[in-house]
Amino acid sequence: MEHRVNKQSERTRRWITQALLKLLRTVPYASISVSDLTREADVSRQSFYRNFESKDAVVSRYLSMIFADYRAAFVREREGLGRRRAVELVFETLYAHKDDVIALVASVPRGTMMLALQDALLDAVAGMESFPKDLSKASDSFGSDMLMYQLGGVSAVVFKWVSNEMPSSPRDMTERLLSVMESVGDGDMVFGRLVEAVGGSAGMATPAA
Amino acid sequence: MEHRVNKQSERTRRWITQALLKLLRTVPYASISVSDLTREADVSRQSFYRNFESKDAVVSRYLSMIFADYRAAFVREREGLGRRRAVELVFETLYAHKDDVIALVASVPRGTMMLALQDALLDAVAGMESFPKDLSKASDSFGSDMLMYQLGGVSAVVFKWVSNEMPSSPRDMTERLLSVMESVGDGDMVFGRLVEAVGGSAGMATPAA
Repeated sequence: MEHRVNKQSERTRRWITQALLKLLRTVPYASISVSDLTREADVSRQSFYRNFESKDAVVSRYLSMIFADYRAAFVREREGLGRRRAVELVFETLYAHKDDVIALVASVPRGTMMLALQDALLDAVAGMESFPKDLSKASDSFGSDMLMYQLGGVSAVVFKWVSNEMPSSPRDMTERLLSVMESVGDGDMVFGRLVEAVGGSAGMATPAA
Repeated sequence: MEHRVNKQSERTRRWITQALLKLLRTVPYASISVSDLTREADVSRQSFYRNFESKDAVVSRYLSMIFADYRAAFVREREGLGRRRAVELVFETLYAHKDDVIALVASVPRGTMMLALQDALLDAVAGMESFPKDLSKASDSFGSDMLMYQLGGVSAVVFKWVSNEMPSSPRDMTERLLSVMESVGDGDMVFGRLVEAVGGSAGMATPAA
């Protein structure tokens, strides 16, 4: 019985998610109401709210579904999986849903989308049995800071790539992201270049507002 | 004349920002309306919309004001300023407004707040005259990926620290963040530990949803 309820629920969620993606092709995100979604998905308002807190939750759910694929691939390929492949799978997973993901980023408020992306990636990683349990987001430790730094960094690069409509291939993005990660420590890149330049100039384009 | 208008505008924005921070002490963010803000700040609705697009824009504005201090300190201290100090100033700047910043993070939607933080930090850095112009967020290059990676990483660690009500001192956070940045490249930390662990187990806590 419970199994059947879950399956129904699963189907309802899929219908609603597909309704959102379909409507987005012609209507901006801000103009889509919950009523539009329930009409397009042919489900009741109660069904919607049993499954989703809000329209934004449908976006989160969609990204979670995508990153469930990531997690599955991560686990399936575990033999010989290195960091390179773990990173490449992030780009490949999103690239496999290119049109829908680009449509979402173009229309969903940036904060909502960035958060959904970061949460989906964290859930995919933290949901693995092997995830080190000391790396809680809430804890005040080196390990959790390392997790958040990498997650924030990878998400920001991925988000920019998607916002620019995925101009480089997943393979090229992987190479670049790995180089970035290798240079963060000793390259002293952005801050280093700034500090050097500020040392020799007035340093401000506009007065502090 | 224009100068006077700017000063008036500046004052109005400050009043509205202070009204938001004051109301937040007793009312959750979601329950505060633009009317509440204009009443508390004693400004007209037109004044509000001349200065802000929405309530969320007041939050962004507040963080931009804080990070204008960051930029000023960055430039003022340019003699002998290294990456350590550049990072420490981020934590010190927020710590100087501890109560208000914690109140905002506790009440403003997470996506809105994270985005405002990331944008304020980017504006502070990109607003400097010495900012390398090739590091545009829109460009598809190693340099812009490096910028976004560091920005996303630092923002995520800072955001977690603020969400946890700043349990560690700015100095301790600086040490930890610098260690994180040094280990990202060769430590193979989070992904490395995961890959290792997944190699020897079924690897999933829950089936892919």
